[in-house]
Amino acid sequence: MTDETNLATGVTAASGFEAAGTACGIKKTGAHDLSLLVADTVVPTVGVFTTSLAAAPPVELNRRRLTSGRARAVVINSGIANAATGEPGMNDAIAVGSALAALLDCAEEEVLVCSTGVIGPRIPVEAIVSALPGLVDDLGTDPAHAEEAARGIMTTDSVPKQAVAEGDGWVIGGMAKGAGMVRPDMATMLAFLTTDAVLDADRMRPMLAAAVAETFNCLNVDGCQSTNDSVILMASGASGVVPEDDMFAAALRGICADLAMQLAQDAEGASKVVTIEVTGAADAASARALGMQVADSALVRSAFHGADPNWGRVLGALGVAGVPLDQSHVAIEFAGVPVCNNGVGVPVDEDAVSQLMSGDFELSISVGDGPGEAGIVTTDLTPDYVRFNADRS
Amino acid sequence: MTDETNLATGVTAASGFEAAGTACGIKKTGAHDLSLLVADTVVPTVGVFTTSLAAAPPVELNRRRLTSGRARAVVINSGIANAATGEPGMNDAIAVGSALAALLDCAEEEVLVCSTGVIGPRIPVEAIVSALPGLVDDLGTDPAHAEEAARGIMTTDSVPKQAVAEGDGWVIGGMAKGAGMVRPDMATMLAFLTTDAVLDADRMRPMLAAAVAETFNCLNVDGCQSTNDSVILMASGASGVVPEDDMFAAALRGICADLAMQLAQDAEGASKVVTIEVTGAADAASARALGMQVADSALVRSAFHGADPNWGRVLGALGVAGVPLDQSHVAIEFAGVPVCNNGVGVPVDEDAVSQLMSGDFELSISVGDGPGEAGIVTTDLTPDYVRFNADRS
Repeated sequence: MTDETNLATGVTAASGFEAAGTACGIKKTGAHDLSLLVADTVVPTVGVFTTSLAAAPPVELNRRRLTSGRARAVVINSGIANAATGEPGMNDAIAVGSALAALLDCAEEEVLVCSTGVIGPRIPVEAIVSALPGLVDDLGTDPAHAEEAARGIMTTDSVPKQAVAEGDGWVIGGMAKGAGMVRPDMATMLAFLTTDAVLDADRMRPMLAAAVAETFNCLNVDGCQSTNDSVILMASGASGVVPEDDMFAAALRGICADLAMQLAQDAEGASKVVTIEVTGAADAASARALGMQVADSALVRSAFHGADPNWGRVLGALGVAGVPLDQSHVAIEFAGVPVCNNGVGVPVDEDAVSQLMSGDFELSISVGDGPGEAGIVTTDLTPDYVRFNADRS
Repeated sequence: MTDETNLATGVTAASGFEAAGTACGIKKTGAHDLSLLVADTVVPTVGVFTTSLAAAPPVELNRRRLTSGRARAVVINSGIANAATGEPGMNDAIAVGSALAALLDCAEEEVLVCSTGVIGPRIPVEAIVSALPGLVDDLGTDPAHAEEAARGIMTTDSVPKQAVAEGDGWVIGGMAKGAGMVRPDMATMLAFLTTDAVLDADRMRPMLAAAVAETFNCLNVDGCQSTNDSVILMASGASGVVPEDDMFAAALRGICADLAMQLAQDAEGASKVVTIEVTGAADAASARALGMQVADSALVRSAFHGADPNWGRVLGALGVAGVPLDQSHVAIEFAGVPVCNNGVGVPVDEDAVSQLMSGDFELSISVGDGPGEAGIVTTDLTPDYVRFNADRS
């Protein structure tokens, strides 16, 4: 990696993209709440969206527009999610997109519109539209502009999240916000990825789906899926290099994993990141269901907080994951220390294990000798999490 | 209801049953940890047990023994769940049951064995067996004995839980402990019901299954199902009265609902009970799945704690419940105040609604005009819950 690459972290690391971010008045704090990501021309673009049946209008709009596999720009506001806003909310999203299309002189179907924030209220279309000309004027390719854009999509994030992955003659850059539905009003995980590799939508679609499945979709901060979750990938082709599938898929997975870990590390109220590795399941889907059930358990995650090697809670969660389980084949390790073997306890020095669980650690679960594996990233459940999310202000 | 009935609350309210409870040394505090429930003779008995694939050995033993539809007695210890103990744990359960069978001069298959408490350790068979002769000598039918038994099954419960329901010439009495898996080590919801009505196991089985489905199985304190959950119903026939199906089913449902509400009210860390009523779903199963998803949501339950009428979090949970949902048909009321209609917000005085949510309240959710309905009882998620469950001591 060169110094240059180190500087160019974020959505403008790949050639062919400009970004900008500003405050348009949605957030009462005056913090950034509006970002643009614009390709030099219309480029191959794919997306992965929430599977929630309560998906927000902008998600529906983007899903529809991306059937073409092409887009020119994305406009993202934070502070209000434009979710549960019905037809008026859809019209608001379309209005914001049309205003940007006019400024960029492109078709409105080539503009994607994302929102993140409180569920329920409508977005202030006029304030957003009024800010767009200045934002378009300000578009830039340097790292400062990428960071402005990364700030404009933040809700309760404490830091902007950016990453870069380098291939042979091409790069992928990205930014993300949120951490699952860590704060229910602040209800979204968004990630925007750009590359200068030469790729079409049909090639990118399965690679993005696979990368998201293995990274963002393995992040479970509080079991709460959002109405607005979106991951979008745009390819400018500006490098002129056609990447090998394997290489690009690996780099894409890497940058998604990097951003997902940044989300976990910034999860509200969390004091540690716990990686749950499940092995020996019948298949990958079973392994994932088992790991997710463990990460969903308020009891298990409370024990993480207390650095309690409470494998009984883990076993209890595994038993109700909805997939076959032979408890006599279960083995559990906290931070590398076996605490349960063949479904029964192993004598351990609990204080020593607890010590190893005081910071980030790994929970390994083997459920048999099947080929199914999964890795889930979660955090501890803390009194602070509840306090944050009980706060009406 | 007569004064006499008011006095006779609990498992000895129905004629034909004796109970007792004592401390045999499992709990270091010296609190009661061993209870007996004994019928005068072998009687029709049915049970409903956890669906967890990590079910504890005593659960497996009872499931097997109740295929006969008959039992004489139940011995219950608290403090250790005898879960995740494998074949040795099964042998321990059998040993305890055999000792009681010898004292009662009945077949060992006619004795049920229940345990509740920490997952992992083995139960102290010798201590339990040594205490059984004294406990059998002490058996009695008065309310004081019923309460001793109700105390002997408690783990982190702060009060014993008993109830009675009266029919035309017969009664049902009961005791219960726990509140879902409120404390993972303390891992069980147990309920024991007795009646003097004349019933056989084939008649009771569907009625108990239905009552449990509508009451205990609609209680969701923290989404964590236990390894030991059991509900057992014994019918002595001592009243000589054969009840009508409808009347008995209603009374059974009533006493189960009463005990379930007592469990919710005593849930660790909880400060309020929230009843979620779902209507308009395609069928009862869909309604239940929707209500359970809402009760499973840490975000929704944190909002309950903060008296926050945050219907967006509720809608977010409904969208990922795994059943069809048209968000434009969703209506939500907090404490009787409409906050969302046709999937979009209704202007309300949030402070006034919050005021109504300061204590126990009802959350009503309508998702369409289907016939499916369900009621779920849950509690708020509190910093205390996390503190309790993060505590290794």
